[in-house]
Amino acid sequence: MHRQATNDSSAATPFGWIDEQSAQRRAAGLVRVLRPRAAESDRLDLAGNDYLGLSRHPEVTEGAAAAARHWGGGATGSRLVTGSTELHAELERELAEFCGFEAALVLSSGYAANLAAVTALAPHGSLIVSDAGNHASLIDGCRLARGATSVVAHADPEAVGKALDTHTGPAVAVTDSVFSVDGDAAPLAQLAAVCREYRAGLIMDDAHGLGVLGAGGRGAAQATGLAGDPDVVATLTLSKSLGSQGGAVLGPAKVIEHLVNTARTFIFDTGLAPAAAGAALAALRLLSREPERAAQARAVAAELHGRLTAAGLQAVRPDAAVVSVRAPSPDEAVQWAADCRAAGLVVGCFRPPSVPDGISRLRLTARATLTGDQIERAVRTIERTAPAGARTA
Amino acid sequence: MHRQATNDSSAATPFGWIDEQSAQRRAAGLVRVLRPRAAESDRLDLAGNDYLGLSRHPEVTEGAAAAARHWGGGATGSRLVTGSTELHAELERELAEFCGFEAALVLSSGYAANLAAVTALAPHGSLIVSDAGNHASLIDGCRLARGATSVVAHADPEAVGKALDTHTGPAVAVTDSVFSVDGDAAPLAQLAAVCREYRAGLIMDDAHGLGVLGAGGRGAAQATGLAGDPDVVATLTLSKSLGSQGGAVLGPAKVIEHLVNTARTFIFDTGLAPAAAGAALAALRLLSREPERAAQARAVAAELHGRLTAAGLQAVRPDAAVVSVRAPSPDEAVQWAADCRAAGLVVGCFRPPSVPDGISRLRLTARATLTGDQIERAVRTIERTAPAGARTA
Repeated sequence: MHRQATNDSSAATPFGWIDEQSAQRRAAGLVRVLRPRAAESDRLDLAGNDYLGLSRHPEVTEGAAAAARHWGGGATGSRLVTGSTELHAELERELAEFCGFEAALVLSSGYAANLAAVTALAPHGSLIVSDAGNHASLIDGCRLARGATSVVAHADPEAVGKALDTHTGPAVAVTDSVFSVDGDAAPLAQLAAVCREYRAGLIMDDAHGLGVLGAGGRGAAQATGLAGDPDVVATLTLSKSLGSQGGAVLGPAKVIEHLVNTARTFIFDTGLAPAAAGAALAALRLLSREPERAAQARAVAAELHGRLTAAGLQAVRPDAAVVSVRAPSPDEAVQWAADCRAAGLVVGCFRPPSVPDGISRLRLTARATLTGDQIERAVRTIERTAPAGARTA
Repeated sequence: MHRQATNDSSAATPFGWIDEQSAQRRAAGLVRVLRPRAAESDRLDLAGNDYLGLSRHPEVTEGAAAAARHWGGGATGSRLVTGSTELHAELERELAEFCGFEAALVLSSGYAANLAAVTALAPHGSLIVSDAGNHASLIDGCRLARGATSVVAHADPEAVGKALDTHTGPAVAVTDSVFSVDGDAAPLAQLAAVCREYRAGLIMDDAHGLGVLGAGGRGAAQATGLAGDPDVVATLTLSKSLGSQGGAVLGPAKVIEHLVNTARTFIFDTGLAPAAAGAALAALRLLSREPERAAQARAVAAELHGRLTAAGLQAVRPDAAVVSVRAPSPDEAVQWAADCRAAGLVVGCFRPPSVPDGISRLRLTARATLTGDQIERAVRTIERTAPAGARTA
């Protein structure tokens, strides 16, 4: 076959096929556009994941600034070469201790942490049982892992058991602790019981649990009594409740040592920037000192849910700080979010194809620091702009 | 099959299989250990990738600190939701302009940038032709992409042509511009010619070229006259010459728009922390003002190479700032690097299994700011600690 000689028009220019995809997106009204924001805004933000309001806290920003000054703008290399500073080691010690695990490993993002944990713990011949609602980074971890993957129904421990029952080698079940779209919690206690019955490990992504669930925000593993167990691994992000950037894997020391030696997204990536490590460490210490922030985030979420439900809207009862509100259609969800924005309220809008279940919704995030007035303003705006079909009969 | 009922000992504890792998690593002397470093050290660092010495530059660390104070410790969400700030947009504009591309997209790491570029530009039915010496992140991008991958011999444009000749759909060739292990440059002009002959796109990872190659460090694409061409995409890291953290994809605006809409490591990751964006932007502006830093890095590399070669050591002629020195065996490489460290010199040590060609070597990085005395001290230390077999006859 001589590619040179073909007259196939799709091969006429190397990236010509992009034009067609782009036109399809435009026709379907699915074009995503970046909207850079200013540092200060009159808009009320119920879309970010800064659950505890720590990203702009002076101790956190000063933690970032001081770390950059003391350690430099970057880590300068892989964590295995020059990229491990005493600051990284300190953050890892305190994260592990706070969440109740033996050891921790910090990576440059939660995405990288999930790729590291899943690939390193699912070797050739192993089975990964993955919840159908899992985050993209866990899905990509499954796709990169050498083990086989069985995707099972959402939040269904029985289905996990059935999948594990078909396999004899090493196995892990992988789940978000709190699912990012609907804000519902995984049935972690039942999943752990099923995993133990079948001698499988359990990996939970606690991105939306850290800082919100458990005593003083110590996360979903602590909340369910699973933290520190020899068959449990948690992944975290430093970019939500801790107001910074980065990710971490927590687990038994031998699992962390295994990751140091085998996880490609750890070994072949530059270490987390000192400023991000410094900001996360400051946020962690602040949360240790002010544990009530976690309960405040949950209380704000419960209040948002209660008031939206009372207004006849279909909000999912939040298990953490994410409150999902159903919209009748993708177009109406987009319009609803745009109307909120025009009224000074920023909310998330999730719709196909980025939701696995095909349901369109507004995604609100509770922030511990929201005032009663702000909650009032948010609820009134969402109510007022709701499409007719968003209300229950 | 009843997994519950088996008595297979390897399934007795969920992560029991790790013990065996760990024992094997220990027996083979291949255990990797993290060595957290202090902020200040008497040791001379020829192992980090801070090629221009900007990571500790006060303008760069102040750029990080000011950005954290102004924008917060984190971006608070996905770039598509709340994570795009005016600072990200500014960095993207200036990066694109500096390197001579139409548009740029900043991600949380170079690893994420490579996963984004390769997966988004290699759809189902396409072919990726990948150099055998490519970085782990490009390899993982190939594994995650929906297209098929053909791995070809290192730095071999003819092999790329042969692979492209077998395929009719969309195709891309993927290569490091400067290979991280040996520091050799890819034959970019020939690769671009072959790609054009076969109407394939070219993706180059310029992690080790930015700041070192091209006029004033504008990178490998600028150096070879390929920057801004409609069929050329470059990926960058902000964590080497720019002394910060993060990555970027540069290319035609339509390619960048396509990534915004489809690249999972962009869409489902928190935006880069403001401090990292601020540090990178400060470094970029500093480099624009002091373009001679790029030539200095290359000159230091050439001097290191020349003096090590004159001493009878087998150093690879550097095409950028990485100088690779052959060691006779993995064990001698490890000992050599340890002896250098004991003498106050930090060098990289690459050996199997993390080198594709099985050759063990010391990996030195030139830094623009190294003084003549420091170069002298480094060369004398490497010479003095060299194993007998490291010298050519």
